[in-house]
Amino acid sequence: MPSPTSILSLLLLLLLTVTVSSANVIRMYPKQHIVGPDDDPKCESWKFSIEVNNAGSWNSIPRPCIEFVKDYFHSGRYLSDSRSVAAFSLTFARSVKVAKGDGMDAWIFDVDETLLSNLPYYEDNGFGSQPYNDTSFNEWVNKGLAPALAASLTVYKWVKKLGFKIFIITGRGESQRVVTEQNLIDAGYSGWEKLILRGSDDEGKKATVYKSEKRAELVKQGYTIQGSSGDQWSDLIGFAIAKRSFKLPNPMYYIP
Amino acid sequence: MPSPTSILSLLLLLLLTVTVSSANVIRMYPKQHIVGPDDDPKCESWKFSIEVNNAGSWNSIPRPCIEFVKDYFHSGRYLSDSRSVAAFSLTFARSVKVAKGDGMDAWIFDVDETLLSNLPYYEDNGFGSQPYNDTSFNEWVNKGLAPALAASLTVYKWVKKLGFKIFIITGRGESQRVVTEQNLIDAGYSGWEKLILRGSDDEGKKATVYKSEKRAELVKQGYTIQGSSGDQWSDLIGFAIAKRSFKLPNPMYYIP
Repeated sequence: MPSPTSILSLLLLLLLTVTVSSANVIRMYPKQHIVGPDDDPKCESWKFSIEVNNAGSWNSIPRPCIEFVKDYFHSGRYLSDSRSVAAFSLTFARSVKVAKGDGMDAWIFDVDETLLSNLPYYEDNGFGSQPYNDTSFNEWVNKGLAPALAASLTVYKWVKKLGFKIFIITGRGESQRVVTEQNLIDAGYSGWEKLILRGSDDEGKKATVYKSEKRAELVKQGYTIQGSSGDQWSDLIGFAIAKRSFKLPNPMYYIP
Repeated sequence: MPSPTSILSLLLLLLLTVTVSSANVIRMYPKQHIVGPDDDPKCESWKFSIEVNNAGSWNSIPRPCIEFVKDYFHSGRYLSDSRSVAAFSLTFARSVKVAKGDGMDAWIFDVDETLLSNLPYYEDNGFGSQPYNDTSFNEWVNKGLAPALAASLTVYKWVKKLGFKIFIITGRGESQRVVTEQNLIDAGYSGWEKLILRGSDDEGKKATVYKSEKRAELVKQGYTIQGSSGDQWSDLIGFAIAKRSFKLPNPMYYIP
């Protein structure tokens, strides 16, 4: 017969199960931790957890944090965070003894929210608070109007100047090669070694697997992947990882 | 003969080299990005970069951010961030079908700034803004008075109740086994499977290597490492990594 203690434990577990649901994970904190109307630590803490990859796969911004995310982009914090990533990236890049010319030191960049910014699109679509719409996002991509993320353009130019071979690995498909190339050029990028897009063999693969496989091919070809820049953990983790990875901020969406 | 363009490039590179030094990486951002006296995005951005492991090995808090770090602990943001980590940890823990009893599902916890909080020590020692002092820190550890990090204690108790086997892997040495065990018990922890400390064979190893090796031994013994909780990336990355890792906040110090 179960003891009163174990019944109590079960009830407590049930209560926790109801309280802590994945979507409502933000709501379990008592009000007393709100330190100011514009400085809600619950949303700061949500952002902390998604940026360090504690949240795992997440589908949408918690409703109480939608305004927080908008403010993150409008207040200059996004730019400031991107600049911080750029500064640490360059500090590392400069520390590498790069063999110029036919050297085999590689640096990998992701495209969306890394080299190019889709903020003009997301600004009109609730900064990731609305469900992802494949059709409208691809319409935006096919316009080829995404601007450079300024801090990444700086990193890109210096990394190139320092002699790294640049590989751009994107989750975009081969059908978007021409528009992506032209968009990158228009945004100020040039001189990459190779732009790698998802081919027919890569369809349905998780980004982590697809990107790891592409990195592994580079390693097989003799490249040393020194640095890797991406806004998603799936740009950076898996296998054949770079010596140093640089995580750009992105509180709008998650790609597994 | 070098062209005027390449001389200009060299001068620009030199300028960047002087401007962006690792310790002063915080200072390269223009003043206009400061949005309020108590909400300096440069320090927020520094914290972003160190928490996502962009900074690599860092030795001290940038001087302009010492007050920011103090405020992070005093304002309740540290507690809020720890609670967010706890919530995501529990959401994942509950999603695992754990075989109770003699099951082989493991969860790994680090000790310092994960299960136990050394804040009383760091409060008296500038929150990591002063150089690490081995003697005074060990004096503090040997008192065995570190309190539990409340959010981690909650996670620990639930993880145990859910049937995970708990392994505690710490960078503390075998000479601190007794005091560490007693401190953990006094802080409310019990029922772990094994407390693993650095032995004589582990001296001089980087934490990433030492902790990966210990995890690999568990995997070899048949355990599935489901979750891992730590405040340092060296608690979480390397090899034999957990299915899900949970990074707790720590803007005070970095362990490679």
